[in-house]
Amino acid sequence: MTYCLGICTHEGLIMASDSRSNAGYDQVNLCRKMHTFVMPDERAFVILTSGSVSLTQSVITLLREDFNAGEGLAKVPTPYAASRVVGEAVRRVSDLDRAHLEKDDFSFNINLLLGGQVKGSRSGLYLVYPQGNPLSATQDSPYLQIGECKYGRPILDRGIVHGSTPLEVAALYGLLSFDAAMRSNVTVGPPIEMLIYRNDSLHFDGYRSFPADDPELLSIHRQWERALRKAVEDLPKIHFNACLPGH
Amino acid sequence: MTYCLGICTHEGLIMASDSRSNAGYDQVNLCRKMHTFVMPDERAFVILTSGSVSLTQSVITLLREDFNAGEGLAKVPTPYAASRVVGEAVRRVSDLDRAHLEKDDFSFNINLLLGGQVKGSRSGLYLVYPQGNPLSATQDSPYLQIGECKYGRPILDRGIVHGSTPLEVAALYGLLSFDAAMRSNVTVGPPIEMLIYRNDSLHFDGYRSFPADDPELLSIHRQWERALRKAVEDLPKIHFNACLPGH
Repeated sequence: MTYCLGICTHEGLIMASDSRSNAGYDQVNLCRKMHTFVMPDERAFVILTSGSVSLTQSVITLLREDFNAGEGLAKVPTPYAASRVVGEAVRRVSDLDRAHLEKDDFSFNINLLLGGQVKGSRSGLYLVYPQGNPLSATQDSPYLQIGECKYGRPILDRGIVHGSTPLEVAALYGLLSFDAAMRSNVTVGPPIEMLIYRNDSLHFDGYRSFPADDPELLSIHRQWERALRKAVEDLPKIHFNACLPGH
Repeated sequence: MTYCLGICTHEGLIMASDSRSNAGYDQVNLCRKMHTFVMPDERAFVILTSGSVSLTQSVITLLREDFNAGEGLAKVPTPYAASRVVGEAVRRVSDLDRAHLEKDDFSFNINLLLGGQVKGSRSGLYLVYPQGNPLSATQDSPYLQIGECKYGRPILDRGIVHGSTPLEVAALYGLLSFDAAMRSNVTVGPPIEMLIYRNDSLHFDGYRSFPADDPELLSIHRQWERALRKAVEDLPKIHFNACLPGH
């Protein structure tokens, strides 16, 4: 399993991914899922991947070859066009592998998050499906997830507001979302990689990798659990009625 | 979908269920999922149900008929024996309906939570599977969920400790777990029913039903969201590095 998250606020983007890959429960590997495509001061994209590692590697390889040749992500005028280029790469790999996988009952399993900006256009955040079609984040749905997303969702639903959450605070919500997913599902694992993109900077301002024993991660984790427990204990106690339910 | 939760602490049990039943997204009904079987000062059981309403109704009907005739849950000496009686009822309904359902590609979908106590034995909390076999809560795994459980799990993982969480605080964790599930999944819905069972009381001390507009529920929800946001904002900001990741 995998967990990847993109958050989009009025100030920019937070992109984060875990690094665990597993086939079954016993074949667990370290696998980085964050891939950047940058031409400083002109364009900056980051892609996060989930699904079969074989498939995501092929898609990133195709995108990288084109980018290095000045094509594809190196040429697109907008993040939407970039999402279409990524979708096209997914379809090329689908043409190569899908029928062979399905012959042995494997599904064509790949999802990607794309975030970034091109000079002269707004920043964007997209999810690209296995079929190659893109979905955009919006002001009302300002975050997108792929992989094991349920455990990490409640904290985002309570906290992220597109027009008001500062980017540094969005980064904390993102980290807490990963903390919840890792705690409840062993197949989501560190290091967590996180990238912060400030609108119109056209390069990545800040990157952070959190290994399992990262002192800052542990300290945030501890402080968060303490604050959470205190917040629960401070809530008014529920008033119960003495009578039994009538059924 | 459904969400039902049982929490077991050193002081007793919290049992809670939502009340939404849906076939698809447009046929949404109100459906209570909490069923009590009480002989005051001798035994007190509560059963929470998830799955096909047709199946859960049949199981409860069989259990109620036996109970009213002084058999089954009216006679068992322990909660474990009660879990076996519930499993037996599941298997009787399976004999009646399973083959006919599977002929039309419906699965035999039913899960139950059983909590309670019989005089002279300890209180217990069990999950009964569609196959009729029981799973017990333990000190290390002090809560059990059925239905849409992922969204509501992180808050329980952080808060519930069997040997130290007071029962009133466990009730708050339970309510917050439902609040998270309802917020992230529309097919989990109010009223939430909650029952509190204090060890050795042999009756249900307290019951509460929270409709959607319950002032106490709304007030706890608001205070919780405020506290959560404040707790995030109070965390130390993440230190990002200026350099790009090397990939």
